[in-house]
Amino acid sequence: MTYTEGMLRPGALKGKNILITGGGTGLGKSMGEYFLELGANIVITSRKQDVLDQSAQEMMSNKGGKVIPISCDIRQEEQIEAMWKKAKEELGQIHVVLNNAAGNFISPTERLSTNAFTTVLDIVLKGTSMMTLIAGKDWIDQKQKGTFLNIVTTYAWTGSGYVVPSAAAKAGVLALTRSLAVEWAKYGIRSNAIAPGPFPTEGAWSRLLPGDLVKKFDPAKKVPVGRVGEHQELANLAAYLVSDFSAYVNGEVITIDGGEWIKGAGEFNNLDLIPSEMWDMMEVARGKKA
Amino acid sequence: MTYTEGMLRPGALKGKNILITGGGTGLGKSMGEYFLELGANIVITSRKQDVLDQSAQEMMSNKGGKVIPISCDIRQEEQIEAMWKKAKEELGQIHVVLNNAAGNFISPTERLSTNAFTTVLDIVLKGTSMMTLIAGKDWIDQKQKGTFLNIVTTYAWTGSGYVVPSAAAKAGVLALTRSLAVEWAKYGIRSNAIAPGPFPTEGAWSRLLPGDLVKKFDPAKKVPVGRVGEHQELANLAAYLVSDFSAYVNGEVITIDGGEWIKGAGEFNNLDLIPSEMWDMMEVARGKKA
Amino acid sequence: MTYTEGMLRPGALKGKNILITGGGTGLGKSMGEYFLELGANIVITSRKQDVLDQSAQEMMSNKGGKVIPISCDIRQEEQIEAMWKKAKEELGQIHVVLNNAAGNFISPTERLSTNAFTTVLDIVLKGTSMMTLIAGKDWIDQKQKGTFLNIVTTYAWTGSGYVVPSAAAKAGVLALTRSLAVEWAKYGIRSNAIAPGPFPTEGAWSRLLPGDLVKKFDPAKKVPVGRVGEHQELANLAAYLVSDFSAYVNGEVITIDGGEWIKGAGEFNNLDLIPSEMWDMMEVARGKKA
Amino acid sequence: MTYTEGMLRPGALKGKNILITGGGTGLGKSMGEYFLELGANIVITSRKQDVLDQSAQEMMSNKGGKVIPISCDIRQEEQIEAMWKKAKEELGQIHVVLNNAAGNFISPTERLSTNAFTTVLDIVLKGTSMMTLIAGKDWIDQKQKGTFLNIVTTYAWTGSGYVVPSAAAKAGVLALTRSLAVEWAKYGIRSNAIAPGPFPTEGAWSRLLPGDLVKKFDPAKKVPVGRVGEHQELANLAAYLVSDFSAYVNGEVITIDGGEWIKGAGEFNNLDLIPSEMWDMMEVARGKKA
Repeated sequence: MTYTEGMLRPGALKGKNILITGGGTGLGKSMGEYFLELGANIVITSRKQDVLDQSAQEMMSNKGGKVIPISCDIRQEEQIEAMWKKAKEELGQIHVVLNNAAGNFISPTERLSTNAFTTVLDIVLKGTSMMTLIAGKDWIDQKQKGTFLNIVTTYAWTGSGYVVPSAAAKAGVLALTRSLAVEWAKYGIRSNAIAPGPFPTEGAWSRLLPGDLVKKFDPAKKVPVGRVGEHQELANLAAYLVSDFSAYVNGEVITIDGGEWIKGAGEFNNLDLIPSEMWDMMEVARGKKA
Repeated sequence: MTYTEGMLRPGALKGKNILITGGGTGLGKSMGEYFLELGANIVITSRKQDVLDQSAQEMMSNKGGKVIPISCDIRQEEQIEAMWKKAKEELGQIHVVLNNAAGNFISPTERLSTNAFTTVLDIVLKGTSMMTLIAGKDWIDQKQKGTFLNIVTTYAWTGSGYVVPSAAAKAGVLALTRSLAVEWAKYGIRSNAIAPGPFPTEGAWSRLLPGDLVKKFDPAKKVPVGRVGEHQELANLAAYLVSDFSAYVNGEVITIDGGEWIKGAGEFNNLDLIPSEMWDMMEVARGKKA
Repeated sequence: MTYTEGMLRPGALKGKNILITGGGTGLGKSMGEYFLELGANIVITSRKQDVLDQSAQEMMSNKGGKVIPISCDIRQEEQIEAMWKKAKEELGQIHVVLNNAAGNFISPTERLSTNAFTTVLDIVLKGTSMMTLIAGKDWIDQKQKGTFLNIVTTYAWTGSGYVVPSAAAKAGVLALTRSLAVEWAKYGIRSNAIAPGPFPTEGAWSRLLPGDLVKKFDPAKKVPVGRVGEHQELANLAAYLVSDFSAYVNGEVITIDGGEWIKGAGEFNNLDLIPSEMWDMMEVARGKKA
Repeated sequence: MTYTEGMLRPGALKGKNILITGGGTGLGKSMGEYFLELGANIVITSRKQDVLDQSAQEMMSNKGGKVIPISCDIRQEEQIEAMWKKAKEELGQIHVVLNNAAGNFISPTERLSTNAFTTVLDIVLKGTSMMTLIAGKDWIDQKQKGTFLNIVTTYAWTGSGYVVPSAAAKAGVLALTRSLAVEWAKYGIRSNAIAPGPFPTEGAWSRLLPGDLVKKFDPAKKVPVGRVGEHQELANLAAYLVSDFSAYVNGEVITIDGGEWIKGAGEFNNLDLIPSEMWDMMEVARGKKA
């Protein structure tokens, strides 16, 4: 079997109702489709109702199951409250919240306005925090168990230039994940995160880096395994983490990036550029001491 | 479905030949049995041939498939070479090496002899390094792809008193994992690690902590999810990481400990001890400012 | 010499103008006083002008030098802009920004209102981000070198229950630190952080944990070196990081907590509770194998 | 004052006797000279007595103070014991052990013999462990306080290809540092580490990377602050960590690399290569949305 196929046993998510923020497009949609395939029902939410409606139709016709599209601006507490209420009315209960909504600017930081910077903080960190508070408080009130899965990035812990508001916000989401994994475990609430490397989505990458730059900065080149990720690979990992099979994984962030970040981090990994013949010569020069 | 069941699609490891060091007992055996169930063939190796032979019989009668028991002292290069050769003769090729063999002393460090300390280093770090070098060089020579999965601990990165030689050695194994994940990716070799929390094995824990101490230091008490792990949970994660479904996970260490280590690490997590009524009083005292 | 004394050579900060947010009280004030002693001029800022005025007088009469008190709500972009302008008018140029302002609630997360939660995010992360953007953009415009030093916590990377908004916000500040350390290094701007463990300030701790709880949760008990920190110890480290002596330290977070967080993190560190006689017995029982 | 000058108050290490493994050359020698300048006495140890003797003479004529040269193969327990005994005879007591001895090969891992690989493990990890056990047990026996300072690398936690045995061994040393920082704190023994980035020493770098490669892989290019480190910068940090001023720093590893490793680690830091005009164009293209 290969990584482009689903990995969990059929029916692995049967009976699970899963809410996905930013679920109408891109990776959120890909994860949602696999959850449907495994028997879950889905709520997708983002700002535009028409996009959500169309996605919901597509997802159901592709995979069957039930997809509820509910628009919501994740920066607005009241809208999250209303969306949560409606989601529960439709499906009875929500068992999993997948915090996937995000915003980002690729830009030198000194070119960002304070407003642009704080907008990203608001969508990513404030939005995720409010979604998490609203869902978590409700679960605790109702003595309902639940699971959070939060999508972060590898630069949540390393930081990164040129995406600094996103780095700051995603770092916050990671700390939120680890904090509540401990504090809310007593209520049967589990919290984990995924840090995906390059998983291109239609348009997203070319929107961020236009024209030739996409080629020049081809993300596959930086990845030890030599390619970008397939959506199914992320969906497999996400399905594991929202399923009961991962019941003992808690407070963890799993990186799925082909080894990209550690390649950059390790001091001598750039010696990959030395050709084999050169190593031969160096061995001779050293009298093959090693 | 629950965490005591296998999670991957039937046949997920069909055609894989997997070598497990320390595979005759405990967690190594549990992982091996699930790999068999998923269609893999297994080599188990450790020092005692009679223990291995009995385990192989048990595993095959439980799960079917092929289990090859080959004794080997992981501290001896020649024995590893011979074992590797024999394993290939039996199965044609090995596709996965699961470095699971370990040794440990629970003791104040100043009570350990230099000899005791270095014995643990030799089994855990030197043994794993040699096993990895021998398998990896052979894979590279033969242009054979391969996968390493290394069992470490959460104290590989935090350190821990009372198990210091193990902490030092497992930290080394983790660095080995991350280093080769990058360097050997170009040869189609992937490397990952698992850091398990408390997964009791018959006898192991009570051997380390005799009598009343086992109760006093009940590991479940330190785990946010309130229990120790089930072997199947570790087996599920390990099966994912040795399967092709995890092809884009590389250089990663996945913790499966119910949140144990981050509970200890987080500065204010011990406020769990404050009862609900006390929080009520504090809110009143503060005029419910928050 | 002991840790209650200043460590740097006299005059080590001569000619440096250092802005300290939250600088009128507590640790901010302690660091400021030592900077004065080393020859720096200081701007202190926080919300209340009268508190700042009094602190400025005290600091100058204790240590000499120049202390400029300028009130500013760190959540308000325009106020930061105005404060920054005034600081430069007073001192000509600012060379160092010490982001020390913070807010925190110790509370079960489910007892926090969304408003309380986001208020902490706004003070700590949004405030620090805006202060950093305003100072950094100005330094870049004027081709002026500069140094950021940001005060975070050990739970910035581990997370922690009961202080979750602070954990999320401080994690964001740490990512900001690391991101800009790389991105803005080309402009001669350096960025580092300190993660202090327990450094009690008058009133702060007892405000957070009233009455008996302070004793019960005596932070010194969790610290391997057996005590809380002295303000001078933090001031020494901070002075090093804002001085030119640390020119090659960049993107780093230095923990000064006596070993507190790693004690909690390491799986077997709680075996400290086993008395010496018990270890004797265990050795006998094992035939002193180790 | 600048980073090429000593930073601590004169006499900061008066009365300290400091043992430095690998202390006769390179960075070990540079740190030792600054310790002398600050009033310490020094023991330097490595394999070759003649090298040590010459270094001791040089160091004393440069800086005054007392330098005791004692040869010792750090891989041999008995030699360490004898060296420790002699060091104490000469100076009465040793207060600080700086574990600085190391060995390394820069090579593709598959080109290393098992013997070469384990030699590095033996020097770096086994040697440091034995030195630490011998000194620590003696300190504990005599109720003498002490301080360990261990030199590691940034690839101790990230791993790195092409220096894999060193990565594994240094990771082990880091775990040793953190483990004993907690466990031995009750005896008044403190443990910390430094992870230096590129601090060239005469010959060392060119021995590792001969000829043109040194230029091609000029380490300064990878460092955000744009240069390699000066020995005095490392000496300043080391002096702080062996002095009593750092009494509340325990179990910490401080990176001094100009930001090198986080630059590599952060996913989008390579966008440094995009010129300013290109960012201008991208802003126009996006309608300056940010």
